[in-house]
Amino acid sequence: MVLYKIWGEKMKVRRSDRLIDMTRYLLENPHTLIPLTFFADRYESAKSSISEDLTIIKRTFKDRGTGVLETIPGASGGSRFLPYILKDEAIEVVDNLIEQMATPQRYLPGGYVYMSDLLGNPKILRQIGRIFATQYLNQEIDAIMTVSTKGVPIAQSVANYLNIPFVIVRHDIEITEGPTVNVNYVSGSSERISKMSLSKRSLKPKSKVLIVDDYMRGGGTIGGMASIVKEFDAELVGVAVVAESTVSKERSISNYTSLMRVDAKDNAVYAQNGNYLDKIYND
Amino acid sequence: MVLYKIWGEKMKVRRSDRLIDMTRYLLENPHTLIPLTFFADRYESAKSSISEDLTIIKRTFKDRGTGVLETIPGASGGSRFLPYILKDEAIEVVDNLIEQMATPQRYLPGGYVYMSDLLGNPKILRQIGRIFATQYLNQEIDAIMTVSTKGVPIAQSVANYLNIPFVIVRHDIEITEGPTVNVNYVSGSSERISKMSLSKRSLKPKSKVLIVDDYMRGGGTIGGMASIVKEFDAELVGVAVVAESTVSKERSISNYTSLMRVDAKDNAVYAQNGNYLDKIYND
Repeated sequence: MVLYKIWGEKMKVRRSDRLIDMTRYLLENPHTLIPLTFFADRYESAKSSISEDLTIIKRTFKDRGTGVLETIPGASGGSRFLPYILKDEAIEVVDNLIEQMATPQRYLPGGYVYMSDLLGNPKILRQIGRIFATQYLNQEIDAIMTVSTKGVPIAQSVANYLNIPFVIVRHDIEITEGPTVNVNYVSGSSERISKMSLSKRSLKPKSKVLIVDDYMRGGGTIGGMASIVKEFDAELVGVAVVAESTVSKERSISNYTSLMRVDAKDNAVYAQNGNYLDKIYND
Repeated sequence: MVLYKIWGEKMKVRRSDRLIDMTRYLLENPHTLIPLTFFADRYESAKSSISEDLTIIKRTFKDRGTGVLETIPGASGGSRFLPYILKDEAIEVVDNLIEQMATPQRYLPGGYVYMSDLLGNPKILRQIGRIFATQYLNQEIDAIMTVSTKGVPIAQSVANYLNIPFVIVRHDIEITEGPTVNVNYVSGSSERISKMSLSKRSLKPKSKVLIVDDYMRGGGTIGGMASIVKEFDAELVGVAVVAESTVSKERSISNYTSLMRVDAKDNAVYAQNGNYLDKIYND
C-alpha cells in the first residue's frame, strides 16, 4: 500500500508537470500544429500518455472557454490550439470598454475621442485580440495590416492570438522601410487627399490580409489600406475596428466588424455596442 | 479497491483541471497578486488543495524556465507569477536574431537596416519582451515609454509581460491625443532639431518609466524621450533597445541595454551581441 502510494504520487507529479508545461506551450504557440512526438520527446513519455494529457487539456480548455484544442490523429498527427473567447465573456469585455469610453473626460474638440490609455493597456489589448481572433478562428489569414500609430497595438494583439505577422502602413515615408508602395486616399473626415505607404518587402503577393484599426470615422483610412492590399495583388479577407463613429453618410467600407459605436458631441462621449455580436456570434 | 480507484481518478481529474486552468490564468496575469481565495472560489476547492497545486506549478515553472511563482503566505496571501527567460534560452533567441539580421538583403542606402519584418513577428516580439521583462523582474515600473512607429511592438510586448501600460511618444501632433507636452531634441544621425510630443493625460507625475525602442543610432530620440520623462516630473528607470548601431562618437545616453550591435556598410549588415548578457545575467 505504501509502495503503491509512492508510485501513485510519482506518476501524479509526472502528469502534473506535463500538463502545466504543455498548457504553457500550447498557449504560447496558438494556431500551430504540434506533433505528438514533440511532446513525447520533451517529456520522455509514451505517446499514449501524451494523448491522454491532450484529452484532459482539451476538455479543460473547452470547459473554461479558453479555446479549441484540435487533435489530429495518425502518424503525422498532433494538436493545434485555437484560442477563442465565448460570447458571454466577450459581452463582458465590450460592456466594460463601453463603460470606460462613455465619459466626458474623453471628449476632445472637433468630436474626437481620447482612447490612447485603453490602447496602451495590455489586459484590454489581450481581450480585444482574443475577440477578433475568435472571428477568424477557422479562416486562413497570412497577415494583419494596420496603419500607424494607434492601430499597431490592436494589430499586434490579434496577430499574437492568430500567430501570424502584422504589417504597418505609414502616413510618412521612412528611410528604414526601403522601397515602398504608395497610394493616395480621401480622408473621410476632412475630405482631403492623403498619402499612405507600405514597405514593398513586407507583404507577399496573394497574401490573405485582415485589416484592423482602432477607430473608423469616414472609412477613408481603411479604404486606403484596402487599395494597398490591391496594389500588392493580395486579398482582403476582413476589416475589424475597435470603435466606429456614428456617421450619417454612407461609408466606402460596408463589410467590417466593430466592437463599439461611439459618438462625441456637446462635450460628451456616447458609446454602445458595435456589430460584433452579429458578426462573430451569429450562429 | 474499485471504489478507491474511482475516487482516485476523480481526484486526479479535478487536480488536472485546476492545474491547467491555473497555469493559463497565471500566464495571462503576470506580475499580479492572485489571492488564494480567488482560486479556491473558482474551483470550489479547499485552500489547502490550491496551495498544493501552486507548489506543483511553482516547481514546474522553475524546472522549465518559465518564471518565478512567488507564494505569499497568510490570510492576505496568494501567488504572483513573474515571467523570465533563462540565460541559455535568451542566448539562443539573440543568436537567432543576429543570424536573421546579418544578411545583405537588409541593407538600405545610407547605412540603414530593414527589420520591420522581425518587429511584426509575434513570436520574436514575445521572446524580446520576455528578455527585457527578465531584466526588470524585481523592479517597480509604472509605464513603458516608446516612440512611434517601430518602437510600439517592442513596448507592447514588454508591457504585456510586466503587465503595465505603455505610452507612445509621437513625432507628429495628433488631434486624438488631446493636449500634449512637446520637446525639441537633436536627432543624432542628421544633427537636425526635431520635435516629439506625448499626450498630457498619458503619464502620471512621479511615474517610474522604462524607455524601449527598436533601434538606437546616435541616441537623440532616446534622449528626447528622456527629456519628456523629465517634463512629466517622472523618473527614468532604464532604457532598452533591440539593436544599437556601432557608432564612433559618444552617445548622450550611456546607460542602456541592447540585444544586438549592428553595423550596415558597403552593402552588408553586420550584427553581434549587444550588452544584454552583462546587463541582465551578470550575477
